[in-house]
Amino acid sequence: MTDFDNETALESAGEGRWSGRVSGKWNIGDAPNGGYLVCIAMQAIRQLSPQHQDPLTVTAHYLRTGIPNAPCEVRAESLRVGRTVSTARATLSQEGKSRLEVLAGFGDLSQTGDEDAPSLQIPAPEMPTSDECPQRSAEEQGVALPLLERLDIRIHPDEVRAGSAGEAQVSGWIRLADGQSPDSLTAVLFADAFPPSVFGLLGNIGWVPTLELTVHVRRRPSPGWVLGQLHTRDLKDGRMVEDGYLWDSNGELLAQSRQIALLLPRS
Amino acid sequence: MTDFDNETALESAGEGRWSGRVSGKWNIGDAPNGGYLVCIAMQAIRQLSPQHQDPLTVTAHYLRTGIPNAPCEVRAESLRVGRTVSTARATLSQEGKSRLEVLAGFGDLSQTGDEDAPSLQIPAPEMPTSDECPQRSAEEQGVALPLLERLDIRIHPDEVRAGSAGEAQVSGWIRLADGQSPDSLTAVLFADAFPPSVFGLLGNIGWVPTLELTVHVRRRPSPGWVLGQLHTRDLKDGRMVEDGYLWDSNGELLAQSRQIALLLPRS
Repeated sequence: MTDFDNETALESAGEGRWSGRVSGKWNIGDAPNGGYLVCIAMQAIRQLSPQHQDPLTVTAHYLRTGIPNAPCEVRAESLRVGRTVSTARATLSQEGKSRLEVLAGFGDLSQTGDEDAPSLQIPAPEMPTSDECPQRSAEEQGVALPLLERLDIRIHPDEVRAGSAGEAQVSGWIRLADGQSPDSLTAVLFADAFPPSVFGLLGNIGWVPTLELTVHVRRRPSPGWVLGQLHTRDLKDGRMVEDGYLWDSNGELLAQSRQIALLLPRS
Repeated sequence: MTDFDNETALESAGEGRWSGRVSGKWNIGDAPNGGYLVCIAMQAIRQLSPQHQDPLTVTAHYLRTGIPNAPCEVRAESLRVGRTVSTARATLSQEGKSRLEVLAGFGDLSQTGDEDAPSLQIPAPEMPTSDECPQRSAEEQGVALPLLERLDIRIHPDEVRAGSAGEAQVSGWIRLADGQSPDSLTAVLFADAFPPSVFGLLGNIGWVPTLELTVHVRRRPSPGWVLGQLHTRDLKDGRMVEDGYLWDSNGELLAQSRQIALLLPRS
């Protein structure tokens, strides 16, 4: 069993209820990474519709910070099972308080369409190889990133130093550290694992808690490194919208993501 | 009372329950517009947190087609009431079946930040005036659009004919037909009221049912016309992701939207 599978595993605890454990291995500082928590919730949703294992669209609202190294409960409910999409919601709770609310539509991304049907794709940007990109710093703003023992993240050399990018953008490579191949679930994890793109422009200016994250997974990825690029073009009154794109090792678009986050001054 | 307020109004029907009516005046063909249905559900969410009346982020999953000229029930539940954000979910049902599931974070967009704080904004595109833009056709692909008696929608002259835009893009002006000023709720309606942008590239190739729509409202708009631009850069295996942007009459970004829709052949 891989680290990811092991640390997102759930056990049935009755109709629509599962129990699991939030690992401390996916932390940013003292808090579990948001994308990691969504993956735990998605493991429950996957069990509601065996024919639909891929998150076509998943939205997560972060209600309260998760607690690392502690048990969790997931309640999940199917809202509709359709031929092409199954819609479900899930709540992840710890210590009796809901931490995360998820609303998702799952489908089957192995069902590809007619080769001749119209298609459009966002092309991958030019990037130095993963060997040419330094690792994401294991400490940011004085906060340790245990997450980097689980995820191998390399940042574009021009964007690795906070405030050096000249725009609110971060680009890099990402893969699971233990060699597990990416899939449609870990795509959601990857979408929330890069440094906040606003640091590239403004430097390490503070804490960026995510209110809501939506990821659209567009295909099952080929094995190997995943390329990510995130940017923020919309920041107002301390609220920012960040867009992200992931491409698989064949250069095919794997996922699009968008999140709204607060930009809070460093305390 | 304006048409919009009247036709999205809800009456309390007990703890966490409201009753209303889905008008037939907001139809696309035989079905109520998706953005209109979200507005009915948001009226319930607004009553859960009086201090947070603006949808900072709202996600809607379309489970089943709504029924025009028929009663509806909305169940809504507060998930967390915070200082800056209140999170809630809502289900709109008709004839005992859920039609729409909404998950939203509401806040107070009248609370603006420090003038000197960093900000970024997506600029409005160049557009001919509303007078120079023809009205959205009241019939598309043989389907009538009663919606156009409620919404005044003008399309960029270069994009008004399906297949003529050269890219999957549509731009235009929008306002409520009865003269009601736009607000943060109608911004969500406007985000889902333009013709599918993929028609601009591919022509009237079929039916584009939305699976999920997420709108981030970024400010309370100034009175007057709202400018919208939507584009699709990502279409694969009959599933497309469409991005939209709205600007108010001062040229300030009002909202960002993204939806995933199916592209189904014309039957």
